[in-house]
Amino acid sequence: MMNISIIGHHITKFGELWDRSLQDLLTEALQNSVNQAFERTGLKPGDIDAIFVSNKASGSFNHQRHVSALASEHFDHFPPAIRVEAACASGGVAIMSACQALRSGQYKTVLVVGVEKMTDASAAETTQILASAANMELEYGSTFPGLYALLAQAHMTAFGTSRENLSAVAVKNHRHAVSNPTAQFRREMTLEQVSNSALVADPLRILDCSPISDGAAAVVLTSQDVSDRQSTTATIIGQGQGQDSLDLASRASFTELAATVRAAKEAYTQAGVAAKDIQMAEVHDCFTIAEILASEDLGFVPKGAGGEAVIAGKTTYGGAVVINPSGGLKACGHPVGATGVKQLAYLASMIEKGACELGLTHNVGGSGATAVVNILAKKGKKGLSR
Amino acid sequence: MMNISIIGHHITKFGELWDRSLQDLLTEALQNSVNQAFERTGLKPGDIDAIFVSNKASGSFNHQRHVSALASEHFDHFPPAIRVEAACASGGVAIMSACQALRSGQYKTVLVVGVEKMTDASAAETTQILASAANMELEYGSTFPGLYALLAQAHMTAFGTSRENLSAVAVKNHRHAVSNPTAQFRREMTLEQVSNSALVADPLRILDCSPISDGAAAVVLTSQDVSDRQSTTATIIGQGQGQDSLDLASRASFTELAATVRAAKEAYTQAGVAAKDIQMAEVHDCFTIAEILASEDLGFVPKGAGGEAVIAGKTTYGGAVVINPSGGLKACGHPVGATGVKQLAYLASMIEKGACELGLTHNVGGSGATAVVNILAKKGKKGLSR
Repeated sequence: MMNISIIGHHITKFGELWDRSLQDLLTEALQNSVNQAFERTGLKPGDIDAIFVSNKASGSFNHQRHVSALASEHFDHFPPAIRVEAACASGGVAIMSACQALRSGQYKTVLVVGVEKMTDASAAETTQILASAANMELEYGSTFPGLYALLAQAHMTAFGTSRENLSAVAVKNHRHAVSNPTAQFRREMTLEQVSNSALVADPLRILDCSPISDGAAAVVLTSQDVSDRQSTTATIIGQGQGQDSLDLASRASFTELAATVRAAKEAYTQAGVAAKDIQMAEVHDCFTIAEILASEDLGFVPKGAGGEAVIAGKTTYGGAVVINPSGGLKACGHPVGATGVKQLAYLASMIEKGACELGLTHNVGGSGATAVVNILAKKGKKGLSR
Repeated sequence: MMNISIIGHHITKFGELWDRSLQDLLTEALQNSVNQAFERTGLKPGDIDAIFVSNKASGSFNHQRHVSALASEHFDHFPPAIRVEAACASGGVAIMSACQALRSGQYKTVLVVGVEKMTDASAAETTQILASAANMELEYGSTFPGLYALLAQAHMTAFGTSRENLSAVAVKNHRHAVSNPTAQFRREMTLEQVSNSALVADPLRILDCSPISDGAAAVVLTSQDVSDRQSTTATIIGQGQGQDSLDLASRASFTELAATVRAAKEAYTQAGVAAKDIQMAEVHDCFTIAEILASEDLGFVPKGAGGEAVIAGKTTYGGAVVINPSGGLKACGHPVGATGVKQLAYLASMIEKGACELGLTHNVGGSGATAVVNILAKKGKKGLSR
């Protein structure tokens, strides 16, 4: 597989950013990521061959329905720009599409920028916008917390996953977010605070849920063997996209996301690595139960052991794999279109800092209808079977 | 460039389809196109490696925000599916992305399906949804007819383009649509009827405008050299995507769409053909003035001569190039996400019928911010410089 390097990246502050517009966020992520790439490699603005924009619903959130054109305007040569969308997995599929375009040979260097400015809409509107990434179950009035609550109940029934297990995911991710300067919530939580927070959809409580967020993230990807002043550039060595039915009612199992299993299998095979080799993972913890499912479906722990693994410290520093070092969707925030790109950008920065040599990102849309897994390695990492 | 063949295609009836849902339209286009591909080539459902869905705004029109997942559900093996969007050029960019994915080698056969079910929203809502594919000018209350009216006024002032010239585009395209069984309006119009229809945005009248439509179209593309029982399969031999600023106020010229010029130059170069070689073209006539601009910007006639060329019969049967044999957006209809895919599907059917050996599609988004050009040739066509 062609080697694709992440030569620039930027993540804006995530949060309720009342003083910043969709365009402000897009511009910050775009300009900083390309400037970093240019400084590191000597590439110039005219070398950006195309732009892939990840965004879920700027048409409804911000009355802006041609966001890809706004991204292209930042360059004098107006590179081709498209928007790629797959609900909350938009960032993951935008990265997939960008890599396919690079591997086709049509483009050599591309920008992927994910953005969502959610607080321009009311919380009620936002809930409806998010909930409509479902199908039949939407007609019965279910929203996303309701759907993931069903998955949580099934997991608790099948494996004895406890209220404390769920809370431990939130506690860990809030602790991780303290060291992430762009995270939405940089404060620790106790198990008791999470377990006693307001009930949203039994058993999920408000502190089991990722927040409504504004933010953007961008990465510059190249297939060229540019001379990079950054000695520890991250490269994408494996990718996979998996699907399942949009309706939960049509799925074979409630205790796994088959889309994640399919995406992971493809990505691990392409990369020539196994789950046990992964040191850090940014996974899609839109709800605490989602991280437990991911830790199992990605192969980090056996099926059913995800809840206890968090309590035992297996998914934080000192454990087998650090899950959601950024704080995850839960504490770093979840500006939907930005999330999948942020995962890649954050992991690239961890690799550059020497905190990780082999990592994984995992982005989910439509309560498990779509999942994308990327595997990243430090450039030239030894010991890979590839 | 890798040879990409169109081995299956289907276009649903376009119109105000009150009895059909988004899913109905998606299903018809998807199933019929893949069944045709399977019959012709012996490929099987499991050979569909990925799905690219073109859709502008099902979230707002139909409260469905994960339409790519709905497409994947049609197959037992749940192929990876993404939605690609670039306002009214969504179909064009979905085809570009699909071809890049094929050329990357990751996929061998893919489905591109475009769909829009617009009549679920009120006409007022639809106007607002369409208008928000602009930026600054939206803030001043402009809608799409208003923006294209400015382009029409500039063209009339610069080149003496007349009311009769505009009307002649509508008359021609309505005449073409009579022979297209899936067209929304299959009846002829007179110049007088168009010229005397209600004024929308001076000089554009209601019969200068493409309609609000429901519909879907799909194509199956393959990079494999499958044994095809269809002897005159269409192949994609050139592609280009061009951009310009989203705001008209920032553009260098009002009498051309620079995005079209850029896209065409790239596509002609890739295909190794010139404008004069093109026999049929499906161009983006969202308004009559848009077809006049396209005929010039694509190089079929000199700049400024587009209006008179229609009157002189140069852009219909017996002329140098048949523009919009389907009836175009004007008379065939414009279900936004379907349009760019319909253009490719219709032209493929013309090639299969022997009506054309070398054709072009031209899809525009955001009143000229994005343009995509595809060039199609009969498989194995002689006399191409490639």
